[in-house]
Amino acid sequence: MESKRPLIGILGGMGPRAGVDLSAKIIAETIAANDQEHLPVVLFSMPDRVPDRTEFLLGKASINPAVELSRQLAGLSELGVTVAGMACNTAHGEPIFGELVKLQEAAAPDIQLLHMIDETVLFIREHHPGVSRVGILATTGTYRIRLYDDLLESADLIPILPGESIAQDLLQAAISNPIWGIKSNSNPVTSRARDVVYEAIENLRDRGAQAVILGCTELPLAVEETTIDDPIMVDPTRVLARALIRHSYPDQLKR
Amino acid sequence: MESKRPLIGILGGMGPRAGVDLSAKIIAETIAANDQEHLPVVLFSMPDRVPDRTEFLLGKASINPAVELSRQLAGLSELGVTVAGMACNTAHGEPIFGELVKLQEAAAPDIQLLHMIDETVLFIREHHPGVSRVGILATTGTYRIRLYDDLLESADLIPILPGESIAQDLLQAAISNPIWGIKSNSNPVTSRARDVVYEAIENLRDRGAQAVILGCTELPLAVEETTIDDPIMVDPTRVLARALIRHSYPDQLKR
Repeated sequence: MESKRPLIGILGGMGPRAGVDLSAKIIAETIAANDQEHLPVVLFSMPDRVPDRTEFLLGKASINPAVELSRQLAGLSELGVTVAGMACNTAHGEPIFGELVKLQEAAAPDIQLLHMIDETVLFIREHHPGVSRVGILATTGTYRIRLYDDLLESADLIPILPGESIAQDLLQAAISNPIWGIKSNSNPVTSRARDVVYEAIENLRDRGAQAVILGCTELPLAVEETTIDDPIMVDPTRVLARALIRHSYPDQLKR
Repeated sequence: MESKRPLIGILGGMGPRAGVDLSAKIIAETIAANDQEHLPVVLFSMPDRVPDRTEFLLGKASINPAVELSRQLAGLSELGVTVAGMACNTAHGEPIFGELVKLQEAAAPDIQLLHMIDETVLFIREHHPGVSRVGILATTGTYRIRLYDDLLESADLIPILPGESIAQDLLQAAISNPIWGIKSNSNPVTSRARDVVYEAIENLRDRGAQAVILGCTELPLAVEETTIDDPIMVDPTRVLARALIRHSYPDQLKR
């Protein structure tokens, strides 16, 4: 019997740009001499079907997005997907991810579902062993559920948050304000949103952060990781792209 | 019975960046107040499975890529896709597209498969009615099979090609040279590749082109359509994105 060729699946649409960005980063992180050598990927981007993750985590909505996500995993499984990732921070909150793993046992047991937050913490440990204090830029929902905080602490890393609650609110506005936020204006990002993000990074550095996690998939649109040296910028979407390659075609992962 | 909600399918992977670019342009051309209002899209990007289109059209390979593409259409159909497009110019060459339409009758009769080149000609007629002379930037294969030329002429438009065969070869190199071409270096594009593309545009303008079709999915990576006013830049990927929206959720198509 022929052994199954790996196929990468992406649960996107949360928001839609994040899934597309993850797809682009898989291409960017792959060693390929021509089109045909690039890796096979299926992207599901059905934002209309996936309920708001933050609303559910904050108790404002009762339907767990895990139900729809497990249905989509089943669809990916039928197509032959072997490894999958979700381009969304909030969907990794334990009430969603934990339920999804349970539902997946029946729906799509053959798919290896990666955990973007675990992979990000692992990445920092492996690639930046000198870092102990890690800043977190994120949405209010992600701060509230301590999505990164707990996993960083489990890995003996110290999570650093922006100083005051007002700073967190401002950051949330920079992401989601309908007039000037990144979700509404991503190409180009408004200078107002960009300024807030850069100030928040400055704030985290002042508080001792040696690395900063861009813990919302909109943030890399405002910050080119490569333009800031100190602190080190860590983009979980790029980390997940690399993890998906490592779990499918490890020989084609760029150094 | 519930009427079926439209679902957009993309046959990507030809090359992989083109499929991702089409996905991004669907988002950019959609009116949506939040994540949930963005349109549902499934992207198949399996570059390893689709044989080289140019090789087939030039008689250097015997397996018609239409066979694999019709299989992928069948897969999209099972997922509920109602309208689909291909992010690849060469795949619209008649020996491929014509065969695909035939195979589709059995494989995925319910999907409306759009034709990017038809849509591009239609777009020029509708949005730029004053234009009669249309320049074409493309790969050697696309020039050879007169992919755009014939359809432009059928619409009473005059196709303009870069002056000499040397210019066409240079343009091909700007796209596919392994050292400095756009396929190998897209972020950022090398200044050498960019210079060739801009010179070719200049050349077409000198020959009377009032509009220029960026007839290879790599070209928009080197040319921001909005940075050149004269001639008018036409990006078939963006045109196809808009056509996919118009055929699924017309009320959400940006002006």
